[in-house]
Amino acid sequence: MASTEETFTLITRNLQEVLGADIIRSVLAEGRPLRCYWGTAPTGRHFLRAGCERASFLHSKTIRFSKPLLDVHAFLDNMKAPLELVAHRVKYYEFVLRAVFKAIPVPIEKLKFVVGSSYQLTKEYNMDNYRLCATVTEHDAKKAGAEVVKQVSSPLLSGLLYPGLQALDEEYLGCDFQFGGVDQRKIFTYAELYLPKLGYKKRAHLMNQMLPGLTGGKMSASDPNSKIDFLDSPAQLKKKLKGAFCEEGNVENNALLSFVKAVLMPISSLRLETQDPVHKTFVYKGQEGEEPAPAGTIFSVPRRDQSTLHYATFEPMEEDFRNKLIHPGDLKAVVTTALTELLEPVQKEFENSKEWQEVTNLAYPAAVTAKVVKPKKVNTSHGTNYEFPFHPQRVDEKNSLIYLLGKGKGKPKGTDATGEAQTALSTATEEVKGAPPAAAALEQAGENED
Amino acid sequence: MASTEETFTLITRNLQEVLGADIIRSVLAEGRPLRCYWGTAPTGRHFLRAGCERASFLHSKTIRFSKPLLDVHAFLDNMKAPLELVAHRVKYYEFVLRAVFKAIPVPIEKLKFVVGSSYQLTKEYNMDNYRLCATVTEHDAKKAGAEVVKQVSSPLLSGLLYPGLQALDEEYLGCDFQFGGVDQRKIFTYAELYLPKLGYKKRAHLMNQMLPGLTGGKMSASDPNSKIDFLDSPAQLKKKLKGAFCEEGNVENNALLSFVKAVLMPISSLRLETQDPVHKTFVYKGQEGEEPAPAGTIFSVPRRDQSTLHYATFEPMEEDFRNKLIHPGDLKAVVTTALTELLEPVQKEFENSKEWQEVTNLAYPAAVTAKVVKPKKVNTSHGTNYEFPFHPQRVDEKNSLIYLLGKGKGKPKGTDATGEAQTALSTATEEVKGAPPAAAALEQAGENED
Repeated sequence: MASTEETFTLITRNLQEVLGADIIRSVLAEGRPLRCYWGTAPTGRHFLRAGCERASFLHSKTIRFSKPLLDVHAFLDNMKAPLELVAHRVKYYEFVLRAVFKAIPVPIEKLKFVVGSSYQLTKEYNMDNYRLCATVTEHDAKKAGAEVVKQVSSPLLSGLLYPGLQALDEEYLGCDFQFGGVDQRKIFTYAELYLPKLGYKKRAHLMNQMLPGLTGGKMSASDPNSKIDFLDSPAQLKKKLKGAFCEEGNVENNALLSFVKAVLMPISSLRLETQDPVHKTFVYKGQEGEEPAPAGTIFSVPRRDQSTLHYATFEPMEEDFRNKLIHPGDLKAVVTTALTELLEPVQKEFENSKEWQEVTNLAYPAAVTAKVVKPKKVNTSHGTNYEFPFHPQRVDEKNSLIYLLGKGKGKPKGTDATGEAQTALSTATEEVKGAPPAAAALEQAGENED
Repeated sequence: MASTEETFTLITRNLQEVLGADIIRSVLAEGRPLRCYWGTAPTGRHFLRAGCERASFLHSKTIRFSKPLLDVHAFLDNMKAPLELVAHRVKYYEFVLRAVFKAIPVPIEKLKFVVGSSYQLTKEYNMDNYRLCATVTEHDAKKAGAEVVKQVSSPLLSGLLYPGLQALDEEYLGCDFQFGGVDQRKIFTYAELYLPKLGYKKRAHLMNQMLPGLTGGKMSASDPNSKIDFLDSPAQLKKKLKGAFCEEGNVENNALLSFVKAVLMPISSLRLETQDPVHKTFVYKGQEGEEPAPAGTIFSVPRRDQSTLHYATFEPMEEDFRNKLIHPGDLKAVVTTALTELLEPVQKEFENSKEWQEVTNLAYPAAVTAKVVKPKKVNTSHGTNYEFPFHPQRVDEKNSLIYLLGKGKGKPKGTDATGEAQTALSTATEEVKGAPPAAAALEQAGENED
């Protein structure tokens, strides 16, 4: 059996940052499963991003996690869309996520889907929300959301509440740690600061790196070519990756290299470790007569007219790309192959599920097309693949975030028909614990503060 | 039977401002009772102020009103006090208010006490609160609370939520109009602007004038001598009024004249109109041999060594004071007499009710004394008798609102033992309507906005 330290290393490898490592170590030392909160607001169509694929780290047998589908948040995002649409999107997200987790594979039995509104609209939760709002200054709430909530000239009040809800979720989902992109850092430190002030324990925070968009900048809600939809057909995948920004020798701002590092290599590594008989590693043979890949290989790059390169870790591959030993064409080809293989079972499941198909049509009616006007002033100091426009459809000339909705032509299946932004909320519990009664919670708070 | 216009005049006389007169007129034309929302947050001990005594206008047979005791708000005010204390204060407030309404008299059967938490923590209410927060900008929420929420250097998030809750209360209490002090004006116009955006109807707003404090400035939570507690004994009353700021000939900033205008004259007028056999008007005989007061008199000022002056309206009395025909000593004497008469039945009821006495001790434990450090920077541009420090006990050196709580000597019965501020929330329903289901509410919203 692995030691506490070995398990800790297994869980935290490849992460960009860990806050509260002592909390993780102490739970591991107790010998009970770690409970992880890893949330998603079901707004635009779920697309491939670090947060999702890095779920691979969750393979650890020591982790149980819940996947709250934060419909309240999504509703806030989509206020003008009827609540019914959000309900369909919750279903759509569950279909997508279950299929993707099976494809990685992450054991589904350790995953609990929780709908946000099932606990976020209770009396206890809201009383705690009021308690929090009576503790937090406007300034701190604003600062916490600065990297995630889109910074506009006339910010809405909801943007100030969002970090607080994410903090309270940690208590109400009974997690040991919250998982998300590093763009969530300020929200995470906000939760670490304020939960104890309400008499609740501080949680650990595990953060992964951000993925750049395919077109060079960050993933953009308005540009389907900047990101990969789980239902992109092999032909669409090929086309998108062919058009991706990828300069020979340039390892900066290279979405393909980032995909290999953050998505493909960890999944391949997991498959190799678990000796999964069904899910193949992304290890490829090159031309006839080549030697087989050496033991420990987790990623191979077949090259045109040259021998195939094999890697056990990312750094040598990055170095080879920098030294122009890997041509952008070769990189694009292998990433296309690997992603096509990865997404194939997801798409098969979609094709075989009439229910999923129906839910997709209901959740993202093809007739609704977004004409997106670029924000005039957006904080771009953080390289993020996440977008968080609190109100994608808010039409306000004075507001720097303008989306105009109108009837448009249907887009090809598999593209982001609504053009809505993906929210940043990346967030997992063995079991959602009963919400503590407000009175008991208050006593706790009193003990800590008086 | 009175015409619509006559009833309208009856209801709105003496008010400083009426917004949405058409709404009031249209309900009167329908012939159904007007529903009024008039709320109070049970924080510090209730004291005599315009908002309460001007309930006299509510005598109109056409008005049914509810009196929500906003425990959620009060809890936000008193976060570090256990919830239990707030529960006792809710009871204390109900005792005080019922006794005062009987003393005026306002028909108790038209009054419905509602505890805020009974509807403010429901799923529907909170979903609406999130919808509102996703519609309102930080700027507008801040502006709405500017006159009521104490302006400090590190404002808390709760201050931004407060105006929204007060707006939603209008819908959830099913009122036709909200009643409060003119310091609530910005919160009222905020409600008028935003409720329709959520698909709810706009309500009318009736505002009364603000009362200055006895000591010359505004009523101060920290200075018991600046205000009158309902349980002040005749001796305490006499002492407070004797020490009140009242310059001969100076009608500005004169709390005694304001009391006569806003509290005593309307009550006396009501008693005269209803020919109440029990509750006497504040009409007094002077020395032996003087003529009786002329018909229509609602207030008399007996003078030392001079004939008694009688008034049917306030303006001639103000003019006489300006012209030094009324000496401050005479004014103080008659106001002391009238207030003593007014409060006598309230205090009798307190003395006869063991339950009320017990609740008072539980709600305002004498051992807790507040040492109040003056705020460094407070917006004093508005002459208000209301105070709204969201966190009276918040200890924060960087914060301009500092209250230090410690054990202190008990204060004389009848004074404000806790030194806590009275909140401004002045806010009435024939019946609290069932909260609309969120889905239905959303459909409404959708119809209005799409």
